[in-house]
Amino acid sequence: MEEQYEKEIVIETDFLKKNEQCANDIENLFKANQINAYDIMGSIGAGKTSLIIELVKKLKDKHNIYAIAGDLTTDIDAERIKEAGADVKQINTGKECHLDTTTIKNTLQDINLKEIDILFVENVGNLICPADYRLGTKKRIVVIAITEGPYMVLKHPYTFLSADIVVINKIDLSPYVGVEPDDLEKDLHKVNPKATVFQCSCRNREGIDALLKELLPEFRY
Amino acid sequence: MEEQYEKEIVIETDFLKKNEQCANDIENLFKANQINAYDIMGSIGAGKTSLIIELVKKLKDKHNIYAIAGDLTTDIDAERIKEAGADVKQINTGKECHLDTTTIKNTLQDINLKEIDILFVENVGNLICPADYRLGTKKRIVVIAITEGPYMVLKHPYTFLSADIVVINKIDLSPYVGVEPDDLEKDLHKVNPKATVFQCSCRNREGIDALLKELLPEFRY
Repeated sequence: MEEQYEKEIVIETDFLKKNEQCANDIENLFKANQINAYDIMGSIGAGKTSLIIELVKKLKDKHNIYAIAGDLTTDIDAERIKEAGADVKQINTGKECHLDTTTIKNTLQDINLKEIDILFVENVGNLICPADYRLGTKKRIVVIAITEGPYMVLKHPYTFLSADIVVINKIDLSPYVGVEPDDLEKDLHKVNPKATVFQCSCRNREGIDALLKELLPEFRY
Repeated sequence: MEEQYEKEIVIETDFLKKNEQCANDIENLFKANQINAYDIMGSIGAGKTSLIIELVKKLKDKHNIYAIAGDLTTDIDAERIKEAGADVKQINTGKECHLDTTTIKNTLQDINLKEIDILFVENVGNLICPADYRLGTKKRIVVIAITEGPYMVLKHPYTFLSADIVVINKIDLSPYVGVEPDDLEKDLHKVNPKATVFQCSCRNREGIDALLKELLPEFRY
């Protein structure tokens, strides 16, 4: 079996290297077109779509926003984001557990990038696999929900290490689940002291303005 | 890029085929030793560990229980299950997003199988990747939490198709998140009419006895 693992690792490295090269190309494409792009990662039901919706609502009157929504099947997320006021492309990955740069690059070819100010990429709902595949966005945002329990940060260090920003969502449910957002924040600072952390509730719109200020300091809302 | 994908698919099929063969070996091993084994899958924070703990508490006085807890890092889950009264082996998968049969087979070699009645395998917290890797257990149980929102069943059909039993957990939080367990159950019946569904709250111990009756009909508690 050892030989098999060796083979697997070589190929995986090769894929990651190619993905990294492609991420640099995409990054340059975003810079050339002055697009602020964000990769939104997080587990199923953490509130990635809800977060994008709240941001779109605040930004849509002054900015052109585009979203790429990754999911195994269905266009539920795309429809919800479109309703909030952004142009959206749904990518159905089938059984694939993360978005990669080849898919993003192909999708960008169909979009008039000159017309876009802000791009949100909603990654596939999975707190593990997307971390290894940088997509060339300006920042990577990881969304976690307080309802996921007290241990999820310490148990998934790799994803949090890859994050520039972490959003602790659903903090309005803290009293009902017995998990303190401050405790999660302490764990996050231990795992990745460089990440900026925001405590939010997409339902109550708590914390959204503070996050917006971090993403677009020049934006007056 | 097309050639690369072709290569990837061939290798993946090969891995899945080998995993399937190994799953059959493990299944025979469980049958020969009269072990009731269950693969518990589900997203991060769905309540897989809590469910195992509640089942262990009910069963430990009359049965010898062993648990294999899969996680990227830490032994938090293993410690919690051990405290409830089961022998536990923690498997840290590093960056690997699911358990496979090679890992399970190696782990079983260190255990005296003759002394075990019931084995719980807690898979890595991920609603996507573990579905493809059958582990040779008697049944596969998928745990979802009501806090993950209203769309998670329709958006992840493959995992639910692989399930014999689905546990809808955290139903006590239904009023606070506005998601009805009955609606999720309807979605589940659409996606996989053969799966048996239980609505549970590990916190209130609601639904645990009904699930136990399904797992071990002969067990009187």
